[in-house]
Amino acid sequence: MKPSREDQAAPAGGPWEECFEAAVQLALRAGQIIRKALSEEKRVSTKTSAADLVTETDHLVEDLIISELQKRFPSHRFIAEEAAAAGAKCVLTPSPTWIVDPIDGTCNFVHRFPTVAVSIGFAVNQELEFGVIYHCTEERLYTGQRGRGAFCNGQRLQVSGETEIGPKRDPATLKLFLSNMERLLHAKAHGVRVIGSSTLALCHLASGAADAYYQFGLHCWDLAAATVIIREAGGIVMDTSGGPFDLMSCRVVAAGTREMAMLIAQALQTINYERDDEK
Amino acid sequence: MKPSREDQAAPAGGPWEECFEAAVQLALRAGQIIRKALSEEKRVSTKTSAADLVTETDHLVEDLIISELQKRFPSHRFIAEEAAAAGAKCVLTPSPTWIVDPIDGTCNFVHRFPTVAVSIGFAVNQELEFGVIYHCTEERLYTGQRGRGAFCNGQRLQVSGETEIGPKRDPATLKLFLSNMERLLHAKAHGVRVIGSSTLALCHLASGAADAYYQFGLHCWDLAAATVIIREAGGIVMDTSGGPFDLMSCRVVAAGTREMAMLIAQALQTINYERDDEK
Repeated sequence: MKPSREDQAAPAGGPWEECFEAAVQLALRAGQIIRKALSEEKRVSTKTSAADLVTETDHLVEDLIISELQKRFPSHRFIAEEAAAAGAKCVLTPSPTWIVDPIDGTCNFVHRFPTVAVSIGFAVNQELEFGVIYHCTEERLYTGQRGRGAFCNGQRLQVSGETEIGPKRDPATLKLFLSNMERLLHAKAHGVRVIGSSTLALCHLASGAADAYYQFGLHCWDLAAATVIIREAGGIVMDTSGGPFDLMSCRVVAAGTREMAMLIAQALQTINYERDDEK
Repeated sequence: MKPSREDQAAPAGGPWEECFEAAVQLALRAGQIIRKALSEEKRVSTKTSAADLVTETDHLVEDLIISELQKRFPSHRFIAEEAAAAGAKCVLTPSPTWIVDPIDGTCNFVHRFPTVAVSIGFAVNQELEFGVIYHCTEERLYTGQRGRGAFCNGQRLQVSGETEIGPKRDPATLKLFLSNMERLLHAKAHGVRVIGSSTLALCHLASGAADAYYQFGLHCWDLAAATVIIREAGGIVMDTSGGPFDLMSCRVVAAGTREMAMLIAQALQTINYERDDEK
């Protein structure tokens, strides 16, 4: 779904239209650079903590966006992620101010998990006037201008009208589930992703966008197709005990390497579910 | 990225090639139905627990896949999610057996969170022979055939070679982070998604694919653009205390409705981060 030139913006007009147009063009250019970089080698340095990754591409994209905007709007101010990491102050004054995140989702970027965005916001008199967010791999351009609506590739956006949330779940299982997540994050995982589809999570593993996956309570129909795809991509599928994979056992650890799979299996506490073939 | 007819499969041949081809065609047809349904109204029933959603589309797609396969391969056996939910036994015999999940990510589907797949696996002599997984909204077709590699839209897949994981993080913050997730899941959230990009998570909220979002420790560049987009899509952005949003405070609750935002704000324990403008 490539955004065409016509559907990128809300109807023309407004005092900051020229700035908005510049933001859209720069977000699209930055997105191209990021897509290209995603196909190249990992090169990573670390920020304040080792979990906080930063890449050459972060710097490159931020420099491009800021230098272009400075040329066109020399009186404007800037707040940007990498500049702040290098010690620049983040103070929002009444002056027109650009607020830029060159790569949101750096950890995803480094691991080639295809959920990475460029974000450019703009405030005047300490009020946000517009925002542009570009999903680089899916080429979705989200925009909002104050008083003029929000759009994704030309389609008007509307939030959900939910006023309450759903059902209760078993508290003991929930505690074990979160405790396993805590163990893995203590065991130094860069991050944990929860995307709501086990088969697609396993496809991310097969493509190298994720290093490992585990779950208890899955069913054979969640695992059958994905197991072949992972094995054929060179990966390992095993039981959460570290033993051989059993399609009907409702539990799985999968990883790119046997070492990684064993590391995950050893960190996990078992959550018991009935086997698929004993129901 | 539409899969073209030529790049769907590994090179031709193999004893189960006709079955594999049928799986690919049915996954693509099912994907079309699911994409169409995603643009229509929510109609949901519940399975064993209220968190376990099932839709008319689950049944429709499963019936299509199974009936087509039964016509072509009348001696084969089937294990499928909705049939199992209706009481069918899941036993893997040596017979050729299809293992089908018509919609993986039903909760995503119901909320129109665009991560939904069709999964078709195939086993003979209790060994998995091939798998086909189709990402319906992004039109990515993942396939694997035993001994013949794994592909996504014709590109060969290769898992990552990571053998260890990364850095440690602050245990107290991690505990608070997971405890907030536990409170929300107790407070009856249908589910929690962690996609690794705050700006894109907020765009999902703006488009109605998520009902609420919260986070501590974000920066102004994570929030500036997205805040305008959400407000212009009719949504609410507030402080985690329930008070007015403060761009420099490093904390946010956003939701489609004020009721939902207040519900989230009241459930959260505060995780303290330094303000962006006091660093």
